[in-house]
Amino acid sequence: MARMEVIPLHGIPEVKRGDDVVRFILDAAAKSGDRLTNGDVVVVKQKIVSKAEGRLVKLSSVEPSRAAGRLAKEQGKDPRMVELILRESKRVVRAGHGVIITETKHGYVCANSGVDRSNIPAGYASLLPRDPDASAKRLRRGLERESHRRVAVVVTDTFGRPWRKGQTDVAIGCSGIEPLRSYVGKSDKFGYSLRVTEPSVVDEIAGAAELVTGKLSGVPVAIVRGVAYERSEDGASTMVMDEELDLFR
Amino acid sequence: MARMEVIPLHGIPEVKRGDDVVRFILDAAAKSGDRLTNGDVVVVKQKIVSKAEGRLVKLSSVEPSRAAGRLAKEQGKDPRMVELILRESKRVVRAGHGVIITETKHGYVCANSGVDRSNIPAGYASLLPRDPDASAKRLRRGLERESHRRVAVVVTDTFGRPWRKGQTDVAIGCSGIEPLRSYVGKSDKFGYSLRVTEPSVVDEIAGAAELVTGKLSGVPVAIVRGVAYERSEDGASTMVMDEELDLFR
Repeated sequence: MARMEVIPLHGIPEVKRGDDVVRFILDAAAKSGDRLTNGDVVVVKQKIVSKAEGRLVKLSSVEPSRAAGRLAKEQGKDPRMVELILRESKRVVRAGHGVIITETKHGYVCANSGVDRSNIPAGYASLLPRDPDASAKRLRRGLERESHRRVAVVVTDTFGRPWRKGQTDVAIGCSGIEPLRSYVGKSDKFGYSLRVTEPSVVDEIAGAAELVTGKLSGVPVAIVRGVAYERSEDGASTMVMDEELDLFR
Repeated sequence: MARMEVIPLHGIPEVKRGDDVVRFILDAAAKSGDRLTNGDVVVVKQKIVSKAEGRLVKLSSVEPSRAAGRLAKEQGKDPRMVELILRESKRVVRAGHGVIITETKHGYVCANSGVDRSNIPAGYASLLPRDPDASAKRLRRGLERESHRRVAVVVTDTFGRPWRKGQTDVAIGCSGIEPLRSYVGKSDKFGYSLRVTEPSVVDEIAGAAELVTGKLSGVPVAIVRGVAYERSEDGASTMVMDEELDLFR
């Protein structure tokens, strides 16, 4: 296999509701001398997608329910934040030690339904995009139309995980790339046939991008170049584990 | 931040018990024209570490216990494999749908205690290294001594995760690199102070390496170049969640 490059895209301005993120990405790529090429995976942080899509909520406008008030008290959190967390969730998976783990409406399990206050103006909270796969598809189509290159898009967020400290960036949306690379039924050089091996290419790409963007650098986009992947219409939501196979429900 | 390169290292021969993996890596790097430079992170798959350390077990030599026999029958697995899985574990976390999730002796939660039959001779099973952080440290010291460069080493394995299909490569051992990059107490440009953000740099590096090595290419090592990290003596085992903070025990 070939080498891979992960390129942070500097010079993207602060994104506001309605902004043309496709244009921002192409301008930043042109300025930095890293114009898109065929096969590039453009990794975009959820936060700028949410900002462009108007998914910021003024906290002073949020009226906490009784349930939110109770849970907020229990976990030492702002009741307005908890209200948003509950609204964005299907169910609370765990709550303890000041942490609320939910299953989001999309089916993702993460802290606080992805509701977050970092890298946005004070007094606001950001929600995840309503349909991050659709967001990824819009971005991909825009980028392909304007650049005349075939690319994929991965929209990422930072998720914790059970049993291990820390977080990794994962894909919450994608377009133009197969989320899982299946080796099922393929044999190794000893003739052993793999049965369950399906690396999550998009999650590994999300993590690779995080390594060059960080959390505070103001770099919300990276280009991953040289990675082998299959073109696909499947979104990241196809990675949500089927309920009946999920050993951790 | 700067761009990052992820370079698959071709030409490493099949590893056998007692082989000098450091020598194999340096020879392959020299042949490919990618000699180590200061700051490189050398990512090594667990399988070749286990092979070099003699962690292959002949299945015909394994006598399954009664408990292993029962669990094997329940989950439709080879009782000798289940015997090894139980021996390598502290506890069974979940079993169902033919999957056995355990906590390994190291404290990692993964399928089958990391016991595996791929990419090894037929009739054998491979166990994880006894102390993957110590393995990483030995490799790092050897690489640094021979190359006169300061490098880090990450030993990886492929782990599934709850709620999401597919797997990602993660760090089971590391040396010379801080596993988590802490942003706790740092402020974004809006003055908001981050409270829990600690990306797992080593897990993201492990995943990035997987993207260029794959599972069947016979490339067990990758070099990650250009990533910013702190030098540290902490191993990957420091990422194991403290029991009393673990919401998923």
